[in-house]
Amino acid sequence: MKRVGSVGDRPERRVRGVEALAGSGRDFPKRRGYGYNRPMTIHFDLHTTDPASGARLGTLHTPHGAVPTPLFAPVGTQATVKTMTPRDLRSLGAGLILANTYHLFLRPGADLVQRMGGLHGFMDWDGPILTDSGGYQVFSLAHMRKLDADGVTFRSHIDGSLQRFTPESVMETEQKLGADIAMCLDECPDPLDRAANERALLRTHAWAARCRAAHTRPDQALFGIVQGGIFPDLRGESARFLAELDFPGYAVGGLAVGETKAQMIATLAHTCPLLPSAKPRYLMGVGAPEDILEAVAQGIDLFDCVLPTRIARNGALLTHAGRLNIRNAQHAAAPQPVEEGCTCYTCQHFSRAYLRHLFKAGETLGLHLATLHNLHFMLRLMEQIRAAIADGSFVAFKERFLAGYQLSDQEARARNRQARRETLAAVA
Amino acid sequence: MKRVGSVGDRPERRVRGVEALAGSGRDFPKRRGYGYNRPMTIHFDLHTTDPASGARLGTLHTPHGAVPTPLFAPVGTQATVKTMTPRDLRSLGAGLILANTYHLFLRPGADLVQRMGGLHGFMDWDGPILTDSGGYQVFSLAHMRKLDADGVTFRSHIDGSLQRFTPESVMETEQKLGADIAMCLDECPDPLDRAANERALLRTHAWAARCRAAHTRPDQALFGIVQGGIFPDLRGESARFLAELDFPGYAVGGLAVGETKAQMIATLAHTCPLLPSAKPRYLMGVGAPEDILEAVAQGIDLFDCVLPTRIARNGALLTHAGRLNIRNAQHAAAPQPVEEGCTCYTCQHFSRAYLRHLFKAGETLGLHLATLHNLHFMLRLMEQIRAAIADGSFVAFKERFLAGYQLSDQEARARNRQARRETLAAVA
Repeated sequence: MKRVGSVGDRPERRVRGVEALAGSGRDFPKRRGYGYNRPMTIHFDLHTTDPASGARLGTLHTPHGAVPTPLFAPVGTQATVKTMTPRDLRSLGAGLILANTYHLFLRPGADLVQRMGGLHGFMDWDGPILTDSGGYQVFSLAHMRKLDADGVTFRSHIDGSLQRFTPESVMETEQKLGADIAMCLDECPDPLDRAANERALLRTHAWAARCRAAHTRPDQALFGIVQGGIFPDLRGESARFLAELDFPGYAVGGLAVGETKAQMIATLAHTCPLLPSAKPRYLMGVGAPEDILEAVAQGIDLFDCVLPTRIARNGALLTHAGRLNIRNAQHAAAPQPVEEGCTCYTCQHFSRAYLRHLFKAGETLGLHLATLHNLHFMLRLMEQIRAAIADGSFVAFKERFLAGYQLSDQEARARNRQARRETLAAVA
Repeated sequence: MKRVGSVGDRPERRVRGVEALAGSGRDFPKRRGYGYNRPMTIHFDLHTTDPASGARLGTLHTPHGAVPTPLFAPVGTQATVKTMTPRDLRSLGAGLILANTYHLFLRPGADLVQRMGGLHGFMDWDGPILTDSGGYQVFSLAHMRKLDADGVTFRSHIDGSLQRFTPESVMETEQKLGADIAMCLDECPDPLDRAANERALLRTHAWAARCRAAHTRPDQALFGIVQGGIFPDLRGESARFLAELDFPGYAVGGLAVGETKAQMIATLAHTCPLLPSAKPRYLMGVGAPEDILEAVAQGIDLFDCVLPTRIARNGALLTHAGRLNIRNAQHAAAPQPVEEGCTCYTCQHFSRAYLRHLFKAGETLGLHLATLHNLHFMLRLMEQIRAAIADGSFVAFKERFLAGYQLSDQEARARNRQARRETLAAVA
């Protein structure tokens, strides 16, 4: 750990000049082989576990500052959290952010990002960053993909070019991107298909071991990803296998991609107790406020999801009563803010009528103001969750929140689930 | 004048509640008839006229604060300067901003804007605002338009609906929008067509008198617009006619819409001396840095133009050496900022390589960062112009700036001019 400090308090700085960049092509130390026990590049302090639930309160120390958990990480797919400047993110109190290896590998390329000082220098974010491995995007976005034991070959969704990921190539890419936390390459099958999960798990485990062996960057932590769909025995097998590889953190993958909410929670309830309690636990791709509350209760520490930013760009705004669609005619002449009492810049300064006007008029300021509100909502929710765990009132907080929060259209969610499953099932 | 203060120093405020809005439907005083000499709602202090040129240094006092001149007003067509929050604009030091009556009349409608506290409340800008009359947009944007002595009938470019502007209806709309400065409805013909300008001038003058008579809002100033194309006698006739109507400010209209640069400057050189020297002079729709410098030398005080914001969204960035297109491959791996030494947020934090990545990846953050840089460039240019006038070095500053500034492709500009003329010539 090079430095621990609170995120967002650094002074403005100049773009790094060529001189500074010249020093950023770090020499990675020679890899020390599989099973080595090098000093952790991140450190997790577990402060409290809620006796009334599995909720955990902690601090995740990274080379780019310490962040409190449970934590929600906004997603900056292409090295930008859509519509937000780094100073916007800092003013919202964002801690960890996520970037996508698949997208950045294709454009602008990991070599370029490395030359520009890695993701931190390139996008001017000096808080912690996590990169996924790109595996999920290969399965959900690429135009074609062909799996073999050694890796996966696919066509870029941008230009159709033929590309290939192996555990070793993904480690090289993630090390060049230089996030604080990198993820192993894994296979993400339809969570309800037992046979597919049995086959995939063998590959995911072999790849995890190869990633572990190939990963050498000393200021970056590599997390393992537990797979196994909704099948308790497969999840158990995966948790045990990965625990032996002694990763500094563990993700639960392959959820929120087609199973029901109840299946997701049951899977977490089964899996979380099998993970090393001293290590941070990350639920990938979740989520909606209601899902986060349930997952925190199961002992999850980290979350990421495009939901708050993506739905914002469709005009869907998060409130304690549920989602509000700002495009609806009922808001045309509404002088009140999106949510009374909300302290975000959007709610402090603009009426629903103005926001609706921006969306109807196709003004990008609408996308920005909506994104800002939704991220504020999520980050404040996480603050409230942490405060509730700290004072022992988490279960009451969760029940109170869920009682007031109307879930969005369940049919639409079911359709989305089905679409995600079909995408994954179409894998060659 | 209700209040004079510097722009940008007010504390954050809550969105106005319904109670506050209820009081915003102002009772306009009964109009006092044509030729009345009511107290001015704006006040212009002329501090200096450069003896080596016609450049003027002044202060424009408005109900929403005082701003220094020469001044460039960013354009917020649909009640938003595209991609910018009000706090962004304040941090850039923007003073006056412009909004378009034609667009806001069609969407969301002037009644709604009035109910939301006028433009200031609706878009949360408490600095000065100017609204054009919508006349130019009727000629350049509407799908059809038919002129008669009383007004102009046109079809909305949004939904094809039939709409009508008269001098009286436009005054009503602009008063509801509630800007600090409103503009008269005028006709804007091809500046090179003598016969069209002779016919149009009669109508423009009759409409100016009707606007003057119909305008009653005491906290809003109405400016007259001098027309007459590139024809000195017509410009002279227009300046004399409007001076007699005793407007608190005068615009030079019908330029930068098809004539050459030399014709524009010659027209300003002829027209400006005919305008009352104690009143502010506003050159509508200009412009490019090189045009602003020439027009300041002719005694123009106010400018507005979509140029810096529009070209930013195409990836064209203003530098002291001329425009730079960030999409060009030469910037793909460039670690330096858009302009060395620039103090804007974009240049202080991001490389050309990152900006190019945002544009290539279709990320709206690129539009925002480019707009921010270009507005910073224009507002700093105006600061430098004012400082140079103050210390008597304006002519030297202008020559130095123009010597280093490479004009953008002259052929492209000539094509743009021709296209604008054809649009105006196609008016029924």
